[in-house]
Amino acid sequence: MTAHLRVDTSPFQRLIGLEMVKAEDGAVELRLPWRDELGRVDGSDWFHGGVLSALIDIAGDYAIASRVGRAVPTIDLRVDYLRPARRGDLRAIARAVKVGKTVGVADVELRDANGAVVAIGRCAYSTAS
Amino acid sequence: MTAHLRVDTSPFQRLIGLEMVKAEDGAVELRLPWRDELGRVDGSDWFHGGVLSALIDIAGDYAIASRVGRAVPTIDLRVDYLRPARRGDLRAIARAVKVGKTVGVADVELRDANGAVVAIGRCAYSTAS
Amino acid sequence: MTAHLRVDTSPFQRLIGLEMVKAEDGAVELRLPWRDELGRVDGSDWFHGGVLSALIDIAGDYAIASRVGRAVPTIDLRVDYLRPARRGDLRAIARAVKVGKTVGVADVELRDANGAVVAIGRCAYSTAS
Amino acid sequence: MTAHLRVDTSPFQRLIGLEMVKAEDGAVELRLPWRDELGRVDGSDWFHGGVLSALIDIAGDYAIASRVGRAVPTIDLRVDYLRPARRGDLRAIARAVKVGKTVGVADVELRDANGAVVAIGRCAYSTAS
Repeated sequence: MTAHLRVDTSPFQRLIGLEMVKAEDGAVELRLPWRDELGRVDGSDWFHGGVLSALIDIAGDYAIASRVGRAVPTIDLRVDYLRPARRGDLRAIARAVKVGKTVGVADVELRDANGAVVAIGRCAYSTAS
Repeated sequence: MTAHLRVDTSPFQRLIGLEMVKAEDGAVELRLPWRDELGRVDGSDWFHGGVLSALIDIAGDYAIASRVGRAVPTIDLRVDYLRPARRGDLRAIARAVKVGKTVGVADVELRDANGAVVAIGRCAYSTAS
Repeated sequence: MTAHLRVDTSPFQRLIGLEMVKAEDGAVELRLPWRDELGRVDGSDWFHGGVLSALIDIAGDYAIASRVGRAVPTIDLRVDYLRPARRGDLRAIARAVKVGKTVGVADVELRDANGAVVAIGRCAYSTAS
Repeated sequence: MTAHLRVDTSPFQRLIGLEMVKAEDGAVELRLPWRDELGRVDGSDWFHGGVLSALIDIAGDYAIASRVGRAVPTIDLRVDYLRPARRGDLRAIARAVKVGKTVGVADVELRDANGAVVAIGRCAYSTAS
Protein backbone atom coordinates (compact mmCIF):
# COMPACT_ATOMS: atom_id res chain seq x y z
CA MET A 1 0.00 0.00 0.00
CA THR A 2 1.38 3.40 -0.90
CA ALA A 3 2.59 5.68 1.87
CA HIS A 4 -0.37 8.05 2.02
CA LEU A 5 -2.74 5.13 2.65
CA ARG A 6 -0.79 3.44 5.45
CA VAL A 7 -2.32 3.71 8.92
CA ASP A 8 0.66 2.44 10.90
CA THR A 9 2.94 5.41 10.29
CA SER A 10 0.94 7.48 12.78
CA PRO A 11 1.76 7.19 16.49
CA PHE A 12 -1.82 8.01 17.52
CA GLN A 13 -3.29 5.50 15.10
CA ARG A 14 -0.96 2.82 16.50
CA LEU A 15 -1.92 3.87 20.04
CA ILE A 16 -5.58 3.09 19.41
CA GLY A 17 -4.83 0.03 17.25
CA LEU A 18 -6.34 1.17 13.95
CA GLU A 19 -6.25 -1.24 10.99
CA MET A 20 -6.80 -0.55 7.29
CA VAL A 21 -9.14 -3.00 5.57
CA LYS A 22 -9.20 -1.36 2.14
CA ALA A 23 -8.76 2.01 0.44
CA GLU A 24 -9.31 2.48 -3.24
CA ASP A 25 -10.86 5.02 -5.54
CA GLY A 26 -12.63 7.06 -2.90
CA ALA A 27 -13.89 4.14 -0.82
CA VAL A 28 -12.27 3.22 2.48
CA GLU A 29 -12.88 0.71 5.22
CA LEU A 30 -11.05 0.80 8.55
CA ARG A 31 -11.34 -1.54 11.52
CA LEU A 32 -10.83 -0.71 15.18
CA PRO A 33 -10.86 -3.68 17.55
CA TRP A 34 -12.07 -3.10 21.11
CA ARG A 35 -9.47 -2.42 23.78
CA ASP A 36 -10.23 -1.62 27.38
CA GLU A 37 -8.13 1.54 27.00
CA LEU A 38 -10.67 2.93 24.54
CA GLY A 39 -13.57 2.77 26.98
CA ARG A 40 -15.76 5.69 27.91
CA VAL A 41 -15.65 5.18 31.66
CA ASP A 42 -14.34 2.47 33.99
CA GLY A 43 -16.57 -0.57 33.93
CA SER A 44 -18.38 0.48 30.75
CA ASP A 45 -18.19 -1.51 27.53
CA TRP A 46 -18.88 1.55 25.35
CA PHE A 47 -16.22 3.14 23.20
CA HIS A 48 -15.36 6.70 24.19
CA GLY A 49 -17.02 9.23 21.87
CA GLY A 50 -13.63 10.80 21.17
CA VAL A 51 -12.51 7.53 19.60
CA LEU A 52 -15.51 7.60 17.28
CA SER A 53 -14.93 11.16 16.07
CA ALA A 54 -11.23 10.42 15.51
CA LEU A 55 -12.14 7.35 13.49
CA ILE A 56 -14.55 9.35 11.32
CA ASP A 57 -11.99 12.06 10.61
CA ILE A 58 -9.33 9.50 9.72
CA ALA A 59 -11.57 7.38 7.49
CA GLY A 60 -12.81 10.42 5.55
CA ASP A 61 -9.25 11.60 5.08
CA TYR A 62 -8.15 8.30 3.55
CA ALA A 63 -11.21 8.33 1.26
CA ILE A 64 -10.14 11.67 -0.21
CA ALA A 65 -6.43 10.73 -0.09
CA SER A 66 -7.16 7.62 -2.14
CA ARG A 67 -8.38 9.91 -4.90
CA VAL A 68 -5.87 12.75 -4.76
CA GLY A 69 -2.79 10.66 -3.99
CA ARG A 70 -1.69 12.26 -0.76
CA ALA A 71 -2.93 12.95 2.78
CA VAL A 72 -5.17 16.03 2.96
CA PRO A 73 -5.65 18.57 5.77
CA THR A 74 -9.07 18.47 7.41
CA ILE A 75 -11.02 21.73 7.07
CA ASP A 76 -13.90 20.69 9.30
CA LEU A 77 -15.56 17.66 10.79
CA ARG A 78 -19.14 16.92 11.79
CA VAL A 79 -20.28 13.86 13.72
CA ASP A 80 -23.78 12.71 14.69
CA TYR A 81 -23.89 10.10 17.44
CA LEU A 82 -26.84 7.77 16.87
CA ARG A 83 -26.44 5.09 19.56
CA PRO A 84 -23.80 3.74 21.95
CA ALA A 85 -20.90 1.89 20.34
CA ARG A 86 -20.44 -1.28 22.35
CA ARG A 87 -17.27 -3.38 22.63
CA GLY A 88 -16.39 -5.43 19.56
CA ASP A 89 -14.83 -4.49 16.23
CA LEU A 90 -15.82 -1.07 14.97
CA ARG A 91 -15.81 -0.52 11.23
CA ALA A 92 -15.58 2.87 9.53
CA ILE A 93 -16.86 2.94 5.95
CA ALA A 94 -16.02 6.18 4.13
CA ARG A 95 -16.66 7.39 0.60
CA ALA A 96 -15.68 10.52 -1.26
CA VAL A 97 -18.78 12.58 -2.07
CA LYS A 98 -16.89 15.31 -3.90
CA VAL A 99 -13.26 15.75 -4.90
CA GLY A 100 -12.89 19.28 -6.25
CA LYS A 101 -9.85 21.41 -6.98
CA THR A 102 -9.88 23.07 -3.56
CA VAL A 103 -12.29 21.04 -1.42
CA GLY A 104 -13.13 17.37 -0.94
CA VAL A 105 -16.12 16.09 1.04
CA ALA A 106 -16.42 12.60 2.52
CA ASP A 107 -19.28 10.73 4.19
CA VAL A 108 -18.51 8.16 6.87
CA GLU A 109 -20.56 5.52 8.65
CA LEU A 110 -19.42 3.78 11.81
CA ARG A 111 -20.83 0.31 12.38
CA ASP A 112 -20.55 -1.88 15.45
CA ALA A 113 -19.87 -5.62 15.45
CA ASN A 114 -23.55 -6.30 14.76
CA GLY A 115 -23.60 -4.01 11.74
CA ALA A 116 -25.66 -1.29 13.44
CA VAL A 117 -24.75 2.28 12.47
CA VAL A 118 -23.60 3.96 15.70
CA ALA A 119 -22.43 7.29 14.28
CA ILE A 120 -22.29 9.14 10.98
CA GLY A 121 -19.87 11.84 9.92
CA ARG A 122 -19.25 14.30 7.14
CA CYS A 123 -15.91 16.05 6.68
CA ALA A 124 -14.41 18.66 4.39
CA TYR A 125 -10.74 18.45 3.39
CA SER A 126 -8.46 20.83 1.55
CA THR A 127 -7.41 19.40 -1.81
CA ALA A 128 -5.59 22.54 -2.96
CA SER A 129 -1.98 21.71 -3.69
CA MET B 1 -14.41 17.26 42.56
CA THR B 2 -17.72 15.51 42.09
CA ALA B 3 -17.83 12.32 40.05
CA HIS B 4 -19.33 13.73 36.83
CA LEU B 5 -16.47 16.24 36.55
CA ARG B 6 -13.57 13.81 37.08
CA VAL B 7 -11.49 13.06 33.99
CA ASP B 8 -9.50 10.14 35.40
CA THR B 9 -12.39 7.68 35.57
CA SER B 10 -12.28 7.21 31.79
CA PRO B 11 -9.80 4.71 30.33
CA PHE B 12 -9.48 6.67 27.07
CA GLN B 13 -8.92 9.95 28.88
CA ARG B 14 -6.17 8.31 30.96
CA LEU B 15 -4.69 6.83 27.77
CA ILE B 16 -4.16 10.27 26.25
CA GLY B 17 -3.22 11.88 29.57
CA LEU B 18 -6.02 14.40 29.92
CA GLU B 19 -6.03 16.72 32.95
CA MET B 20 -8.82 18.87 34.35
CA VAL B 21 -7.81 22.43 35.17
CA LYS B 22 -11.21 23.73 36.23
CA ALA B 23 -14.90 23.13 35.69
CA GLU B 24 -17.53 25.36 37.20
CA ASP B 25 -20.80 26.89 36.22
CA GLY B 26 -20.61 26.17 32.51
CA ALA B 27 -16.93 27.06 32.08
CA VAL B 28 -14.28 24.36 31.69
CA GLU B 29 -10.57 24.24 31.08
CA LEU B 30 -8.72 21.04 30.27
CA ARG B 31 -5.02 20.50 29.62
CA LEU B 32 -3.42 17.87 27.40
CA PRO B 33 0.38 17.66 27.60
CA TRP B 34 2.24 16.50 24.50
CA ARG B 35 3.16 12.84 24.25
CA ASP B 36 4.85 11.26 21.27
CA GLU B 37 1.98 8.74 21.13
CA LEU B 38 -0.41 11.56 20.21
CA GLY B 39 1.50 12.55 17.08
CA ARG B 40 -0.01 12.76 13.63
CA VAL B 41 2.71 10.87 11.82
CA ASP B 42 6.15 9.54 12.74
CA GLY B 43 8.68 12.33 12.99
CA SER B 44 6.03 15.08 13.12
CA ASP B 45 5.55 17.31 16.14
CA TRP B 46 1.88 17.96 15.35
CA PHE B 47 -0.94 16.50 17.39
CA HIS B 48 -3.16 14.08 15.46
CA GLY B 49 -6.44 15.74 14.43
CA GLY B 50 -8.36 12.94 16.11
CA VAL B 51 -6.90 14.02 19.44
CA LEU B 52 -8.17 17.56 18.87
CA SER B 53 -11.72 16.52 18.03
CA ALA B 54 -11.80 14.20 21.05
CA LEU B 55 -10.62 17.03 23.28
CA ILE B 56 -13.32 19.35 21.96
CA ASP B 57 -16.09 16.83 22.53
CA ILE B 58 -14.87 16.10 26.06
CA ALA B 59 -14.46 19.75 27.05
CA GLY B 60 -17.91 20.68 25.78
CA ASP B 61 -19.42 17.77 27.64
CA TYR B 62 -17.90 18.88 30.96
CA ALA B 63 -19.11 22.44 30.33
CA ILE B 64 -22.70 21.25 30.09
CA ALA B 65 -22.20 18.62 32.82
CA SER B 66 -21.00 21.34 35.19
CA ARG B 67 -24.43 22.96 34.82
CA VAL B 68 -26.75 19.96 34.81
CA GLY B 69 -24.89 17.89 37.41
CA ARG B 70 -24.21 14.76 35.36
CA ALA B 71 -22.43 13.61 32.20
CA VAL B 72 -24.53 14.22 29.07
CA PRO B 73 -24.69 12.23 25.80
CA THR B 74 -23.30 14.06 22.78
CA ILE B 75 -25.88 14.64 20.05
CA ASP B 76 -23.44 16.04 17.53
CA LEU B 77 -20.01 17.60 17.23
CA ARG B 78 -18.52 20.09 14.80
CA VAL B 79 -14.84 20.99 14.61
CA ASP B 80 -13.04 23.58 12.47
CA TYR B 81 -9.28 23.12 12.23
CA LEU B 82 -7.59 26.50 11.94
CA ARG B 83 -3.86 25.68 12.06
CA PRO B 84 -1.53 22.83 13.04
CA ALA B 85 -1.36 22.06 16.76
CA ARG B 86 2.31 21.72 17.58
CA ARG B 87 3.86 19.85 20.53
CA GLY B 88 3.45 21.49 23.91
CA ASP B 89 0.52 21.71 26.31
CA LEU B 90 -2.85 21.99 24.59
CA ARG B 91 -5.62 23.77 26.44
CA ALA B 92 -9.33 23.33 25.77
CA ILE B 93 -11.52 26.18 26.97
CA ALA B 94 -15.23 25.39 26.83
CA ARG B 95 -18.30 27.34 27.81
CA ALA B 96 -21.99 26.50 27.84
CA VAL B 97 -23.83 28.63 25.29
CA LYS B 98 -27.25 27.20 26.06
CA VAL B 99 -28.53 24.76 28.67
CA GLY B 100 -32.14 23.97 27.82
CA LYS B 101 -34.51 21.28 29.01
CA THR B 102 -33.66 18.93 26.15
CA VAL B 103 -30.53 20.36 24.48
CA GLY B 104 -27.32 22.01 25.62
CA VAL B 105 -24.85 23.72 23.30
CA ALA B 106 -21.18 24.35 24.10
CA ASP B 107 -18.44 26.33 22.34
CA VAL B 108 -14.84 25.20 22.66
CA GLU B 109 -11.50 26.75 21.77
CA LEU B 110 -8.26 24.78 21.59
CA ARG B 111 -5.11 26.77 22.22
CA ASP B 112 -1.52 25.68 21.80
CA ALA B 113 1.33 26.41 24.21
CA ASN B 114 1.74 29.89 22.66
CA GLY B 115 -1.93 30.73 23.14
CA ALA B 116 -2.80 30.49 19.44
CA VAL B 117 -6.25 29.08 18.68
CA VAL B 118 -5.64 25.90 16.65
CA ALA B 119 -9.20 24.60 16.43
CA ILE B 120 -12.73 25.61 17.43
CA GLY B 121 -15.65 23.39 18.10
CA ARG B 122 -19.37 23.51 18.79
CA CYS B 123 -21.29 20.57 20.21
CA ALA B 124 -24.88 19.73 21.08
CA TYR B 125 -25.66 17.50 24.04
CA SER B 126 -28.85 15.88 25.29
CA THR B 127 -29.92 17.33 28.62
CA ALA B 128 -33.25 15.45 28.76
CA SER B 129 -33.35 13.31 31.87
CA MET C 1 -52.58 15.80 3.75
CA THR C 2 -52.58 16.30 7.50
CA ALA C 3 -51.77 19.74 8.86
CA HIS C 4 -48.19 19.12 9.97
CA LEU C 5 -47.23 18.04 6.45
CA ARG C 6 -48.76 20.99 4.56
CA VAL C 7 -46.26 23.45 3.09
CA ASP C 8 -48.73 26.19 2.16
CA THR C 9 -49.58 27.25 5.70
CA SER C 10 -46.23 29.01 6.02
CA PRO C 11 -45.89 32.57 4.68
CA PHE C 12 -42.18 32.12 3.91
CA GLN C 13 -42.74 28.83 2.12
CA ARG C 14 -45.44 30.49 -0.01
CA LEU C 15 -43.08 33.42 -0.67
CA ILE C 16 -40.49 31.15 -2.25
CA GLY C 17 -43.09 28.91 -3.93
CA LEU C 18 -42.36 25.62 -2.20
CA GLU C 19 -44.36 22.54 -3.23
CA MET C 20 -44.75 19.20 -1.46
CA VAL C 21 -44.35 16.17 -3.71
CA LYS C 22 -44.66 13.48 -1.07
CA ALA C 23 -44.13 12.88 2.64
CA GLU C 24 -44.61 9.51 4.21
CA ASP C 25 -42.92 7.34 6.79
CA GLY C 26 -39.73 9.35 7.09
CA ALA C 27 -39.25 10.02 3.37
CA VAL C 28 -39.99 13.45 1.88
CA GLU C 29 -39.70 15.05 -1.50
CA LEU C 30 -40.18 18.79 -2.05
CA ARG C 31 -40.02 20.78 -5.27
CA LEU C 32 -38.97 24.40 -5.70
CA PRO C 33 -39.47 25.85 -9.19
CA TRP C 34 -37.10 28.58 -10.33
CA ARG C 35 -38.19 32.18 -9.88
CA ASP C 36 -36.08 35.19 -10.70
CA GLU C 37 -36.64 36.42 -7.14
CA LEU C 38 -34.65 33.46 -5.82
CA GLY C 39 -31.49 34.35 -7.75
CA ARG C 40 -28.12 34.84 -6.18
CA VAL C 41 -27.26 38.07 -7.93
CA ASP C 42 -28.79 40.13 -10.76
CA GLY C 43 -28.22 38.48 -14.10
CA SER C 44 -27.21 35.13 -12.60
CA ASP C 45 -29.23 31.97 -13.13
CA TRP C 46 -28.00 30.38 -9.88
CA PHE C 47 -30.25 29.96 -6.88
CA HIS C 48 -29.16 31.95 -3.83
CA GLY C 49 -27.39 29.73 -1.30
CA GLY C 50 -29.81 30.89 1.38
CA VAL C 51 -32.65 29.30 -0.57
CA LEU C 52 -30.79 25.99 -0.61
CA SER C 53 -30.14 25.92 3.13
CA ALA C 54 -33.77 26.85 3.84
CA LEU C 55 -34.93 24.04 1.59
CA ILE C 56 -32.70 21.53 3.38
CA ASP C 57 -33.94 22.55 6.82
CA ILE C 58 -37.57 22.37 5.70
CA ALA C 59 -37.26 19.01 3.96
CA GLY C 60 -35.52 17.42 6.93
CA ASP C 61 -38.17 18.77 9.25
CA TYR C 62 -41.00 17.19 7.24
CA ALA C 63 -39.08 13.89 7.14
CA ILE C 64 -39.04 13.74 10.94
CA ALA C 65 -42.54 15.24 11.22
CA SER C 66 -43.90 12.47 9.00
CA ARG C 67 -42.74 10.01 11.63
CA VAL C 68 -43.63 11.79 14.85
CA GLY C 69 -46.89 13.34 13.69
CA ARG C 70 -46.11 17.00 14.28
CA ALA C 71 -43.68 19.72 13.22
CA VAL C 72 -40.41 19.56 15.18
CA PRO C 73 -38.04 22.36 16.25
CA THR C 74 -34.68 22.33 14.50
CA ILE C 75 -31.74 21.88 16.89
CA ASP C 76 -29.07 22.40 14.28
CA LEU C 77 -28.47 22.36 10.55
CA ARG C 78 -25.42 21.56 8.44
CA VAL C 79 -25.17 22.14 4.70
CA ASP C 80 -22.38 21.27 2.27
CA TYR C 81 -22.55 23.08 -1.07
CA LEU C 82 -21.21 20.83 -3.82
CA ARG C 83 -21.85 22.81 -7.02
CA PRO C 84 -23.93 25.77 -8.26
CA ALA C 85 -27.69 25.19 -8.40
CA ARG C 86 -28.81 26.50 -11.78
CA ARG C 87 -32.32 27.64 -12.73
CA GLY C 88 -34.88 24.89 -13.15
CA ASP C 89 -36.85 22.82 -10.66
CA LEU C 90 -34.93 22.01 -7.50
CA ARG C 91 -35.87 18.84 -5.66
CA ALA C 92 -35.15 18.15 -2.00
CA ILE C 93 -35.13 14.48 -1.03
CA ALA C 94 -35.04 13.90 2.72
CA ARG C 95 -35.06 10.79 4.86
CA ALA C 96 -35.15 10.21 8.59
CA VAL C 97 -31.88 8.61 9.72
CA LYS C 98 -32.89 8.38 13.37
CA VAL C 99 -36.09 9.14 15.25
CA GLY C 100 -35.31 8.86 18.94
CA LYS C 101 -37.22 9.94 22.04
CA THR C 102 -35.43 13.27 22.25
CA VAL C 103 -33.58 13.72 18.94
CA GLY C 104 -34.29 13.02 15.29
CA VAL C 105 -31.68 13.22 12.51
CA ALA C 106 -32.45 13.67 8.82
CA ASP C 107 -30.30 13.53 5.69
CA VAL C 108 -31.22 15.68 2.70
CA GLU C 109 -30.06 15.82 -0.90
CA LEU C 110 -30.79 18.73 -3.21
CA ARG C 111 -30.89 17.88 -6.90
CA ASP C 112 -31.11 20.25 -9.83
CA ALA C 113 -33.29 19.77 -12.92
CA ASN C 114 -30.67 17.44 -14.41
CA GLY C 115 -30.59 15.24 -11.32
CA ALA C 116 -27.15 16.43 -10.18
CA VAL C 117 -26.70 16.72 -6.41
CA VAL C 118 -25.97 20.40 -5.74
CA ALA C 119 -25.98 20.35 -1.94
CA ILE C 120 -26.33 17.88 0.93
CA GLY C 121 -27.56 18.55 4.42
CA ARG C 122 -27.88 16.90 7.78
CA CYS C 123 -30.12 18.26 10.51
CA ALA C 124 -30.99 17.43 14.10
CA TYR C 125 -34.49 18.06 15.43
CA SER C 126 -36.01 17.93 18.89
CA THR C 127 -38.54 15.12 19.16
CA ALA C 128 -39.11 15.54 22.91
CA SER C 129 -42.78 16.27 23.57
CA MET D 1 -19.79 50.71 -0.83
CA THR D 2 -17.88 48.54 -3.24
CA ALA D 3 -19.75 46.02 -5.36
CA HIS D 4 -18.88 42.86 -3.43
CA LEU D 5 -20.33 44.35 -0.24
CA ARG D 6 -23.66 45.53 -1.65
CA VAL D 7 -26.69 43.56 -0.55
CA ASP D 8 -29.21 45.01 -3.01
CA THR D 9 -27.74 43.44 -6.14
CA SER D 10 -29.21 40.07 -5.16
CA PRO D 11 -32.84 39.31 -6.07
CA PHE D 12 -33.29 36.98 -3.08
CA GLN D 13 -31.79 39.49 -0.66
CA ARG D 14 -34.19 42.14 -1.99
CA LEU D 15 -37.07 39.67 -1.70
CA ILE D 16 -36.52 39.26 2.04
CA GLY D 17 -35.60 42.93 2.56
CA LEU D 18 -32.04 42.59 3.78
CA GLU D 19 -30.12 45.73 4.74
CA MET D 20 -26.37 46.23 5.24
CA VAL D 21 -25.47 48.13 8.41
CA LYS D 22 -21.69 47.88 8.12
CA ALA D 23 -18.96 45.71 6.63
CA GLU D 24 -15.32 46.40 7.24
CA ASP D 25 -12.18 44.45 7.93
CA GLY D 26 -13.82 41.14 8.68
CA ALA D 27 -16.69 42.51 10.75
CA VAL D 28 -20.22 42.71 9.33
CA GLU D 29 -23.61 43.73 10.62
CA LEU D 30 -26.81 43.12 8.66
CA ARG D 31 -30.39 44.02 9.56
CA LEU D 32 -33.54 42.20 8.55
CA PRO D 33 -36.81 43.94 9.46
CA TRP D 34 -39.85 41.78 10.15
CA ARG D 35 -42.28 41.16 7.31
CA ASP D 36 -45.30 38.93 7.50
CA GLU D 37 -43.98 37.05 4.45
CA LEU D 38 -41.04 35.83 6.51
CA GLY D 39 -43.20 34.10 9.10
CA ARG D 40 -42.90 30.48 10.07
CA VAL D 41 -46.57 29.64 9.90
CA ASP D 42 -49.79 31.63 9.46
CA GLY D 43 -50.65 33.50 12.62
CA SER D 44 -47.20 33.07 14.16
CA ASP D 45 -44.91 36.00 14.89
CA TRP D 46 -41.76 33.87 14.62
CA PHE D 47 -39.36 34.17 11.72
CA HIS D 48 -39.09 31.01 9.58
CA GLY D 49 -35.93 29.05 10.39
CA GLY D 50 -34.96 29.13 6.73
CA VAL D 51 -34.69 32.91 6.93
CA LEU D 52 -32.30 32.61 9.85
CA SER D 53 -29.96 30.14 8.14
CA ALA D 54 -29.95 32.27 4.98
CA LEU D 55 -29.08 35.33 7.05
CA ILE D 56 -26.19 33.50 8.73
CA ASP D 57 -24.74 32.29 5.44
CA ILE D 58 -24.98 35.77 3.92
CA ALA D 59 -23.48 37.59 6.89
CA GLY D 60 -20.54 35.19 7.11
CA ASP D 61 -19.91 35.58 3.39
CA TYR D 62 -19.71 39.37 3.64
CA ALA D 63 -17.36 39.06 6.62
CA ILE D 64 -14.89 37.06 4.57
CA ALA D 65 -15.58 39.13 1.41
CA SER D 66 -14.70 42.30 3.32
CA ARG D 67 -11.23 40.86 3.85
CA VAL D 68 -10.54 39.23 0.48
CA GLY D 69 -12.19 41.86 -1.70
CA ARG D 70 -14.73 39.69 -3.51
CA ALA D 71 -17.72 37.43 -2.82
CA VAL D 72 -16.65 33.92 -1.82
CA PRO D 73 -18.35 30.56 -2.45
CA THR D 74 -19.70 28.86 0.69
CA ILE D 75 -18.11 25.48 1.38
CA ASP D 76 -20.38 24.60 4.28
CA LEU D 77 -22.71 26.12 6.82
CA ARG D 78 -23.68 25.15 10.34
CA VAL D 79 -26.48 26.73 12.35
CA ASP D 80 -27.57 26.17 15.95
CA TYR D 81 -31.03 27.43 16.80
CA LEU D 82 -31.13 28.62 20.41
CA ARG D 83 -34.59 30.14 20.79
CA PRO D 84 -37.48 31.41 18.65
CA ALA D 85 -36.80 34.60 16.69
CA ARG D 86 -39.83 36.81 17.26
CA ARG D 87 -41.02 39.67 15.02
CA GLY D 88 -38.93 42.80 15.11
CA ASP D 89 -35.59 43.71 13.54
CA LEU D 90 -33.15 40.83 13.35
CA ARG D 91 -29.46 41.66 13.39
CA ALA D 92 -26.71 39.39 12.10
CA ILE D 93 -23.25 40.11 13.50
CA ALA D 94 -20.48 38.25 11.70
CA ARG D 95 -16.73 38.21 12.11
CA ALA D 96 -13.95 36.49 10.21
CA VAL D 97 -12.27 33.90 12.44
CA LYS D 98 -9.72 32.83 9.84
CA VAL D 99 -8.87 34.08 6.36
CA GLY D 100 -6.41 31.60 4.85
CA LYS D 101 -5.16 31.07 1.34
CA THR D 102 -7.78 28.43 0.56
CA VAL D 103 -10.35 28.61 3.37
CA GLY D 104 -12.02 31.32 5.40
CA VAL D 105 -14.12 30.70 8.52
CA ALA D 106 -16.71 33.09 9.93
CA ASP D 107 -18.73 33.13 13.14
CA VAL D 108 -22.19 34.69 13.15
CA GLU D 109 -24.65 35.65 15.87
CA LEU D 110 -28.29 36.47 15.20
CA ARG D 111 -29.92 38.78 17.71
CA ASP D 112 -33.57 39.70 18.02
CA ALA D 113 -34.93 43.19 18.68
CA ASN D 114 -34.28 42.73 22.41
CA GLY D 115 -30.66 41.78 21.84
CA ALA D 116 -31.15 38.10 22.70
CA VAL D 117 -29.06 35.66 20.66
CA VAL D 118 -31.56 33.48 18.78
CA ALA D 119 -29.16 31.49 16.61
CA ILE D 120 -25.44 31.07 16.06
CA GLY D 121 -23.67 29.96 12.92
CA ARG D 122 -20.25 29.00 11.66
CA CYS D 123 -19.43 28.84 7.97
CA ALA D 124 -16.46 27.89 5.80
CA TYR D 125 -15.83 29.69 2.52
CA SER D 126 -13.44 29.08 -0.33
CA THR D 127 -10.88 31.87 -0.59
CA ALA D 128 -8.81 30.18 -3.31
CA SER D 129 -8.65 32.43 -6.35
